Amino acid sequence: MPAEPLSKAGLQDVIALDTAISYLDTDREQILIKGFDLIELTQHIGYVEMIHLLFEHQLPNTEQVKSLEQRLKDQCDIPTSLWTILQELPQETHPMDAQRTALSVLAGFDQSLHDCSVQANTHRAYRLLATLPMITANSYYLLNGKPTIVTDSSLSYSANFLYLLTGRVPSKLEERIFDLSLLLYSEHELPNSTFTARVIASTLSDMYGALTGAVASLKGPLHGGANEEVMKLLLKVNTPEAFEELLQEKLRQKEKIMGFGHRVYAKKMDPRALIMKRALIDLSDQRGDDQFLRMCEAGENLMEREKGLFPNLDYYAAPVYYMLGIPIDLFTPIFFCSRTVGLCAHIIEQHQNNRLFRPRVQYKGTPYQFI
Amino acid sequence: MPAEPLSKAGLQDVIALDTAISYLDTDREQILIKGFDLIELTQHIGYVEMIHLLFEHQLPNTEQVKSLEQRLKDQCDIPTSLWTILQELPQETHPMDAQRTALSVLAGFDQSLHDCSVQANTHRAYRLLATLPMITANSYYLLNGKPTIVTDSSLSYSANFLYLLTGRVPSKLEERIFDLSLLLYSEHELPNSTFTARVIASTLSDMYGALTGAVASLKGPLHGGANEEVMKLLLKVNTPEAFEELLQEKLRQKEKIMGFGHRVYAKKMDPRALIMKRALIDLSDQRGDDQFLRMCEAGENLMEREKGLFPNLDYYAAPVYYMLGIPIDLFTPIFFCSRTVGLCAHIIEQHQNNRLFRPRVQYKGTPYQFI
Repeated sequence: MPAEPLSKAGLQDVIALDTAISYLDTDREQILIKGFDLIELTQHIGYVEMIHLLFEHQLPNTEQVKSLEQRLKDQCDIPTSLWTILQELPQETHPMDAQRTALSVLAGFDQSLHDCSVQANTHRAYRLLATLPMITANSYYLLNGKPTIVTDSSLSYSANFLYLLTGRVPSKLEERIFDLSLLLYSEHELPNSTFTARVIASTLSDMYGALTGAVASLKGPLHGGANEEVMKLLLKVNTPEAFEELLQEKLRQKEKIMGFGHRVYAKKMDPRALIMKRALIDLSDQRGDDQFLRMCEAGENLMEREKGLFPNLDYYAAPVYYMLGIPIDLFTPIFFCSRTVGLCAHIIEQHQNNRLFRPRVQYKGTPYQFI
Repeated sequence: MPAEPLSKAGLQDVIALDTAISYLDTDREQILIKGFDLIELTQHIGYVEMIHLLFEHQLPNTEQVKSLEQRLKDQCDIPTSLWTILQELPQETHPMDAQRTALSVLAGFDQSLHDCSVQANTHRAYRLLATLPMITANSYYLLNGKPTIVTDSSLSYSANFLYLLTGRVPSKLEERIFDLSLLLYSEHELPNSTFTARVIASTLSDMYGALTGAVASLKGPLHGGANEEVMKLLLKVNTPEAFEELLQEKLRQKEKIMGFGHRVYAKKMDPRALIMKRALIDLSDQRGDDQFLRMCEAGENLMEREKGLFPNLDYYAAPVYYMLGIPIDLFTPIFFCSRTVGLCAHIIEQHQNNRLFRPRVQYKGTPYQFI
């Protein structure tokens, strides 16, 4: 026992590790990724460029983007027995649990599983990013007794992902919006799931193991899943007035309302949310249907007025995903897919400069007793 | 960012949480579990009593032990499709990865999966303890193309577990020794795997998810697996002299030798190891074969002489498991099975008085740059 133990409930404000990947700068209200402001990045790059930035440590040129798009297409083969396994899962299986099982199974197919070098890990991460969209979409179809779907290699990474989720080739606008959502969700410093992945990786356990732990963490109601909750709320009523009334009632009952508040953006609206809101506006315009937009705006105004809270990314991502035709049960699994690039970057960094996580406890139990 | 961030690499000496379950008292060189000294407990109780102690918070009477033994027998039914799934895993799958996949799959069969109350969690934990021996043994048989085996309900929990692992009804001595090993491995404060389980559970994710993360952690070479490594070393040579020479060579090469050193027992031998050593003596006597015993003793003497290091539990558990006829690949999966009781107790405690784990980072990357 140390003389003066360092201690904070939930490790709040405790620095758990050094990283060169990202940083939530609460003073500047900025999400820094590899030195770039995430919001600025959205003006210049897409999700595939983000993959390159996180794994190759620099922004790619046009040739490199093309080559990475091709690599992700070339490596998307999936062992047949994985489908058999997913088909055997009980229908009640949560899509996040199916995703977790799939990742756990894939470990057995990796012939250099225990090679945790940067090179092997990066190669592995690219493969996972190539296969996860198909695994995520098809595990959902199999659980729901629907026919599976195969990759359309004529499409871009994001367009193909959205195609797999909806069964419909997306328009240019839909593709751009979905890609933007993946980019915004791609990396976010050290939330519980990323911390989980690094704690596991610190035993020098492999990437699949670290990722299964991360899916399990992201599944928790206090972590991922906010976008699904927002959508379920939006679907309870039809009008801005009714939605406002619904939120008012929740506030009266002192229930937590998902989709509001953010660790970094406390004093203003999460600019990631603002970007998603614009995407919702564009989509509503194109469809000539602004029902969700008006409901969301009513909720946004109410929450600012009543609680001084601003919408976060999940709040506007939810109706956008819904309007893109994505099943609600897949919102959190998609969140996991987009975050996989960040998670893998953290696992690679952990393996590269490792220190086993092994904190201590404060014992508050029965004092020593004889039997 | 806090003004003075709390920070220690690997969170060493950081108090991550309060617990009433156990405590490694480094001053008294004692492992305290629910107020009892683990070594004292081994004189009075077996593994099933430990399950009762950890879940019901008191030592059981004879009637309660009998009833718990029965409960563990009654609840050991396993869904057929789990076997189909395990059969589909590639042969190269690591037994720990098979165990992790099985736990991940089981979540879909739990009809009250998201009920994290103490009652539901405890019920779930009993079921898992009832089924894990059969799952662990049979996943190994399936991976190795061998016929599966079914529970012998005429045997005690530990005797049946050992029977499943070896296909042979154990003698009384073998049963006692195996039970002792489960007891000694059952709980150990906050090693990486237990910490992982609690970090995941703190998102209010379910017990299966927290346990899949814990298996992944325990699989890491820096965590579980020491008992397997010890055994592989012992099998390289045949005599005490040759074993001593082997360790000498490793010391010259500055290689890490598994099975020595312990966080709590720094100044003397881990009494858990001493108990296992006595078990090895008994087993060697009964078999009239003291080869491993003499090799282990030679290694023990050498390491104390050369490095001032003492054997830990893994060092003597390895030859004991081997002489009991357990396949080496199952040593770490068995470690996980025995630790499941401790892990579940921690998950229950975390859900009961929860605080989300969400530490921060020190950013050491590229400073802010424009694109």
